[in-house]
Amino acid sequence: MVGSTKTDEEIEHHHVLSSIRTKIGLEAEPPILDGHEVHHHLNWSSVRVIFREPFAEFFGVFIMILFGDGSVAQVLLSAGEKSAPGMNGFGQYQSISWGWGLGVMLGIYVAGDSGGFLNPAVTFCFCLFRKLPWKRFPIYFLAQVLGGFAGSGVVYANYLNAINQFEGHGIRTVPPSTTATAGIFCTYPQAFMTKASQFFSEFIASTILMFVIFALKDDSNPGAMGKSGAGMLFPLALFFLIFGLGACFGWETGYAINLARDFGPRLMSYIVGYGHEVWSAGGYYFWIPMVAPFFGCTFGAFLYDFFIYTGPESPVNTPWLGLKDLFTQPWRSKKKPEKYEV
Amino acid sequence: MVGSTKTDEEIEHHHVLSSIRTKIGLEAEPPILDGHEVHHHLNWSSVRVIFREPFAEFFGVFIMILFGDGSVAQVLLSAGEKSAPGMNGFGQYQSISWGWGLGVMLGIYVAGDSGGFLNPAVTFCFCLFRKLPWKRFPIYFLAQVLGGFAGSGVVYANYLNAINQFEGHGIRTVPPSTTATAGIFCTYPQAFMTKASQFFSEFIASTILMFVIFALKDDSNPGAMGKSGAGMLFPLALFFLIFGLGACFGWETGYAINLARDFGPRLMSYIVGYGHEVWSAGGYYFWIPMVAPFFGCTFGAFLYDFFIYTGPESPVNTPWLGLKDLFTQPWRSKKKPEKYEV
Amino acid sequence: MVGSTKTDEEIEHHHVLSSIRTKIGLEAEPPILDGHEVHHHLNWSSVRVIFREPFAEFFGVFIMILFGDGSVAQVLLSAGEKSAPGMNGFGQYQSISWGWGLGVMLGIYVAGDSGGFLNPAVTFCFCLFRKLPWKRFPIYFLAQVLGGFAGSGVVYANYLNAINQFEGHGIRTVPPSTTATAGIFCTYPQAFMTKASQFFSEFIASTILMFVIFALKDDSNPGAMGKSGAGMLFPLALFFLIFGLGACFGWETGYAINLARDFGPRLMSYIVGYGHEVWSAGGYYFWIPMVAPFFGCTFGAFLYDFFIYTGPESPVNTPWLGLKDLFTQPWRSKKKPEKYEV
Amino acid sequence: MVGSTKTDEEIEHHHVLSSIRTKIGLEAEPPILDGHEVHHHLNWSSVRVIFREPFAEFFGVFIMILFGDGSVAQVLLSAGEKSAPGMNGFGQYQSISWGWGLGVMLGIYVAGDSGGFLNPAVTFCFCLFRKLPWKRFPIYFLAQVLGGFAGSGVVYANYLNAINQFEGHGIRTVPPSTTATAGIFCTYPQAFMTKASQFFSEFIASTILMFVIFALKDDSNPGAMGKSGAGMLFPLALFFLIFGLGACFGWETGYAINLARDFGPRLMSYIVGYGHEVWSAGGYYFWIPMVAPFFGCTFGAFLYDFFIYTGPESPVNTPWLGLKDLFTQPWRSKKKPEKYEV
Repeated sequence: MVGSTKTDEEIEHHHVLSSIRTKIGLEAEPPILDGHEVHHHLNWSSVRVIFREPFAEFFGVFIMILFGDGSVAQVLLSAGEKSAPGMNGFGQYQSISWGWGLGVMLGIYVAGDSGGFLNPAVTFCFCLFRKLPWKRFPIYFLAQVLGGFAGSGVVYANYLNAINQFEGHGIRTVPPSTTATAGIFCTYPQAFMTKASQFFSEFIASTILMFVIFALKDDSNPGAMGKSGAGMLFPLALFFLIFGLGACFGWETGYAINLARDFGPRLMSYIVGYGHEVWSAGGYYFWIPMVAPFFGCTFGAFLYDFFIYTGPESPVNTPWLGLKDLFTQPWRSKKKPEKYEV
Repeated sequence: MVGSTKTDEEIEHHHVLSSIRTKIGLEAEPPILDGHEVHHHLNWSSVRVIFREPFAEFFGVFIMILFGDGSVAQVLLSAGEKSAPGMNGFGQYQSISWGWGLGVMLGIYVAGDSGGFLNPAVTFCFCLFRKLPWKRFPIYFLAQVLGGFAGSGVVYANYLNAINQFEGHGIRTVPPSTTATAGIFCTYPQAFMTKASQFFSEFIASTILMFVIFALKDDSNPGAMGKSGAGMLFPLALFFLIFGLGACFGWETGYAINLARDFGPRLMSYIVGYGHEVWSAGGYYFWIPMVAPFFGCTFGAFLYDFFIYTGPESPVNTPWLGLKDLFTQPWRSKKKPEKYEV
Repeated sequence: MVGSTKTDEEIEHHHVLSSIRTKIGLEAEPPILDGHEVHHHLNWSSVRVIFREPFAEFFGVFIMILFGDGSVAQVLLSAGEKSAPGMNGFGQYQSISWGWGLGVMLGIYVAGDSGGFLNPAVTFCFCLFRKLPWKRFPIYFLAQVLGGFAGSGVVYANYLNAINQFEGHGIRTVPPSTTATAGIFCTYPQAFMTKASQFFSEFIASTILMFVIFALKDDSNPGAMGKSGAGMLFPLALFFLIFGLGACFGWETGYAINLARDFGPRLMSYIVGYGHEVWSAGGYYFWIPMVAPFFGCTFGAFLYDFFIYTGPESPVNTPWLGLKDLFTQPWRSKKKPEKYEV
Repeated sequence: MVGSTKTDEEIEHHHVLSSIRTKIGLEAEPPILDGHEVHHHLNWSSVRVIFREPFAEFFGVFIMILFGDGSVAQVLLSAGEKSAPGMNGFGQYQSISWGWGLGVMLGIYVAGDSGGFLNPAVTFCFCLFRKLPWKRFPIYFLAQVLGGFAGSGVVYANYLNAINQFEGHGIRTVPPSTTATAGIFCTYPQAFMTKASQFFSEFIASTILMFVIFALKDDSNPGAMGKSGAGMLFPLALFFLIFGLGACFGWETGYAINLARDFGPRLMSYIVGYGHEVWSAGGYYFWIPMVAPFFGCTFGAFLYDFFIYTGPESPVNTPWLGLKDLFTQPWRSKKKPEKYEV
C-alpha cells in the first residue's frame, strides 16, 4: 500500500482510508502485499481497500454455500434417477458431507484475508477469547449473512428447472412434505426431535467445531498447526472436520452450526416463495440454528481454553476467569488493537 | 540449457531454438533445470525444447481425460453388475467425481511446466487478467484440444468390448437412448433443461472454477497458496474443487466447463461412429460447453479481481478498468513479455 | 513458563509444579511456549500445567470417540431412511470408516502435547520400544479410558431420541438382537467368528497399526515423516491408516484395536442400561479388544524394530534383544528421563 | 553407521558388510542415519544392514497387499449383509479403490529406504531409464514377490472363517463360479474380454502408472514433486493415482499392473487349495498381469522421457535413444554406481 515515493495527496488519501477502516473495526493497514500498489485515484480501489476483509468473508461464505447447498440440491433432486451413470441418482448422502466439507475448505482459501471465519459464532469466539476487536463483529456478521443469502440465491437460480420438475411448476414446499425442496437451502429437524434435543444437537456440534478450530490454531500445541509451516493444512483439516460433523452429527438437525449458513438462505427461500413455513416448520425451529451455535461455540472455546490453552490472550488465563476483564472491556477497546493474525 | 563451456555451434543452435519459441508465443528460455543439459545435436531434443509447454498441456489434458472419461465408462458400463465385489457394479456416481477430480490433479502434476491450465478458458483468463502473452494462447489451445481427443480415443479403445456388450456390437447411440454410451466421452444435458438453463449451469460452474483458481494463485491472499510453500497443495485443492463441481453442479449439464474436455472427445466420438447426433443432441447443445466456459471463467476472474485482487497485473487495477489498456494491447505485446510463473 | 524476572515465590511455585509432574511420570517442564506465561497465583492454571499431557490425551480420545461412535450412530439409526437426500439413509458403512479415520486425525491434532497416542497399547509400545518413561503409562491410561467413557456418553445423550425411536422407548439391546444399538458404542464380533479368529482379527489389525505408526515416526526412514517437515502429514497419514483398517479389517470384529475406545464406551453403555449382555455377548468377547491390542501392537512394534529400525532407543538394537535391559529397568528409570519428543 | 572412534575390528566388520551389499547390487553404504549406530557385534544387526532395502520392499508390498486384498475380502464376503450399519454390507466397490490406494500410500511410507517401488515393473523402469543399478533388480524382485505372497497369506488366514461361510467349508472356487473367492487374492478378467483386450487393459493402466510416477519424480517439472519440499506429497499423490486406476480402469481386468501383487498372491491361493484353475481361468490369464506391466510401464516411461524429461540419466536423452548405451551396459556397470536417491 505504501509506494517508495509518495505525494502529499497520496499520504492524505492513505490517512482517509485508514481512518474509515478503523471506524468499522478493521486494522488501519489493510492486509495487502507491498508489491501490490493501490491506485489511489481509483474510487473503486479505495472501496475495495476499505472493505477488504468484509468482502473476503462475503465471498468465503458465498463459495461455501454454493457447494454446500449445491450438493444438497443435486442429491435431493436427482434421487433415484435411472439415467445417471450407475443408475441411482447423481450422488448419495455422502456427497453432502463432501459438499459442505470442501465448500468450507475452499471458502477459507478465498477468505484468507479476513481470517476465514465464515461463521458469526466463530468470529464471536475469536472476539471473546482471542482479542479480535469487537468493533469488527458487526461488519463481518453482515458480510457473512449476505454471503449466505447470495450464495443460496445462485443455487436456487441454477436448480430452478429441476425444482419445478421435482415439486411441480411454481410449487414450493417445506418438510415434512414429501416433495419438499426447502431443505436444499436451510436446515429442518427430523420429526422425532424434541425442542431440547434440537438445541442440544446443534449445541454439541458447535462445541466440537470451535474446540477443534482452537486446537488447530493453537501455536503452543505441537500437534496443531498455528502459524508454523503446517498451518497450510488448516483448510484441509477443516474439510475433515466439517465432513465429520456431516457424517456423524448431520442427521438430526442438519448441522447448520452457523447463523450465516442457515438464516441467510432461509431468508432467501422465504423471499422466493417457500412461504411462512420456512419459519414455522419444526415448531419454529428457525431460531435454534441462529442461537445454539453461539452457545455451543462459546462453550467449546471455553473448554479448550480452560483445559488446554495457555496463551495470554484468553480471558480464562486472567484472574477471575476474565470476568473482571469483561466489565472493563470498554476501557480496553480504547487501546490500539494489537495486530491480529490468523 | 546452458553448459559451462559452449561452442559457437551450441550458441547458434540456442539462438535458433529461442527464436522459434518466441515466434509461437513461448518464453525464449525453456523452463529446464540447469543441470539438465540438452543434447543440441539431437533433432528430437530440439523439438522437445521448442514445444515443451505445449507438450506439457497436451499430456496434462490427456491424463485428465483418461481418468475422467475412464471413470464414466466404468460406472456407466458396469452399472448393476452382480459379479462385482459388493454386487452392485464397479462404482457409483461418486466415482465420477473422484475420476475428474484426481484426473485434474494428476494432470496438473504432469503439466507443471506449462502452468497446468488444461482448459482454454483458464488460459484465456490468465492472458486477459494476468499478462500471460496472448501469442501463447493458440498453441496451448491446440495442445489442449488434441489432448482431449487423444485421451478419449484411448478410453474408447480400452472399453471397446464393454461398449459392444452394452449397446450391441457396432451400435453406438447418444442420449436420450437408454443404452447410450456417448455420454462417456462428452457431456449431454438433462432433458428438462432449457437452453438458457444449460448456458447458465455451465456459466456458473465456470465462474466458480475461475474465481477459486484465482484465489488459490493469489500471493496477497494469506489463505491462498500462490508461490509460498503452500503452493504445493494447489493440485490437491484442485482435486477438491473439481470434485465439488461434480458433486454439486454436475447433474444438469455434466460440468464440462472446458472446451478441450468436451469438444476434443466429442469430435473423437463423431469420428468413431456415434453419428451426427453428437452434435444435434440436446438441441445442438455442443456449442454451449465450448462457449459458456469462456464467459463464465471471464466473469469469475473479473469478480475476483474486482472485489479482492490487488496485484498490478490485472487490468481491473488500472484506470478505466483496463479497457484503455485493452485497446492498446497490440502495442503492449511488442514489449518483451515478463517471465510468467505459476 | 519462565518469565524474565521471577520472584522467589514464583520460583518456589515452579518447583512445586515440577515435582508433582515428575511424580506422575511427566517431564518436569510442561510443554508450553515461552511466550505463554502461566499465572502462578491461579489455582486452576497450576492444575492445568500439572496435568497438561493427561488432559491432552483425554480430549484427544474424547474427540476421536465423538466422531467414531457418532458415525456408527448416524448410519445405524438412520438406515434406509426415505426422507434423507438420496432416499437411502444418512450414510452407509463407508461413513464409519470416515468417522473413525478423521476422528483419530482430529484427536491427534488436539492431543499434540501428549504425543497423541490415544490408545493404551500404543503408549505401551512407546514405553517398551522408544523409552517413553513407564511411570507415565498409568496416568495416560486413565485419561484415555475416561476420554472414551465421556465421549461415548455425549454420543448417547445426543442420539437418545433416535435410539428410543429405533429400539422402542427405554429398550436397549445388544447384538445379535436385530434392533440392537449397543454396537454404536463398542464392538461386537460377527456370529461366525470363533474365539481364536476373534483374537487373531484384533491381533493382526493392531499389528498393522503399530507397524505403520513406527514407520511413520522413524526419522531414518526417508519415506517416513519423523521430525522432518513431512511430520505435519502424520495426522493425515493416520486418517488413511484408520480408514484402511475399517475398510479392510473392520467387518469381523469391528476393529476396536484400542482398550480405551472399546472398554470406556462399553462401561458407559452398561451404566446407561444396556444390561449384562454388553459383557457376555459374543462369548464374553469384551476382554479381547482389551488384551489383543497389547499383544498385536507389541508384535507390530517388534517386527518393525527387528527388520527395519536402527535407532538406539529400541531394546531390539541392544545385546540380548533388550532382555537384559528389561531386567535392569528399575535401575534405569532412576536416571533422569531424556526429553521425549514425538 | 560410522562412530567417531572406530576400532580395527569395527572397520573390518564394516568392510565385510559393504562388500556383501555391493555383491547383491546395493550401495556399499546402507541408508542409515549417522546417529543410529549399528551394533556390529550383533549378528542380526548385520543381516538387517545388509538386506535393508530388500526388507523395506518386502514390508512395503506386504502392507500394500494387506490393505488391498483385505478390502476385496471384506467387500466381497460381506456383500448385502443386513447386520451391517446401513444394512447393505461392509463396503461397496469404492472401498476397494480406497484399500489399494491407501495400501500403496502406506507401503511407500514403510518402504522409504528402498525407493518404495513395490512393483517389479517400476523397478525395471528405474533401472532402464534412471540408472538404478541392474544388479539390484533380482533381490528387489524376490522381496516384492515374497511380500505379496506373505501379505495375501495373512489376509487368507484372517478371513478363513468368512470364506468357509461364503463358499462352504473347505470349498474354494475361482471365477466365474458365483461363490468364487479366489478374486480376493489375485485378478481374474471379465468374461467379455478377448485376450488382446486383456493385454491392452493391463498395458494402458501400467502406462499411466509409470508416466505419472515419472512426472511426480521429475525435479525439472515445477508441477511435480521430485526432491523439493513437495516430495513429501508423493505418497499422497500415489493414493490418488492408484485410487483413480481402480475407479477408472479397474473393472475389466482388475488392474493388477504389478507382478508382485498378482503372482505372489496367486501362488499363495494355489498352495492353500484353490486348485489348478487359478492358472487356467480366463484362458490362462495369469501370465498377462505378469508380462503386460513390464511392457506398459516401459512404454509409459519412454513416453514421458521422449516428450517431457530432459535429465541426462535417461537413455532417451543420449545419442541413438540410448540403444548404443544399452549394448555397452556391461561395461558401464563396472563403474561405481552413483548414489541413487528417490
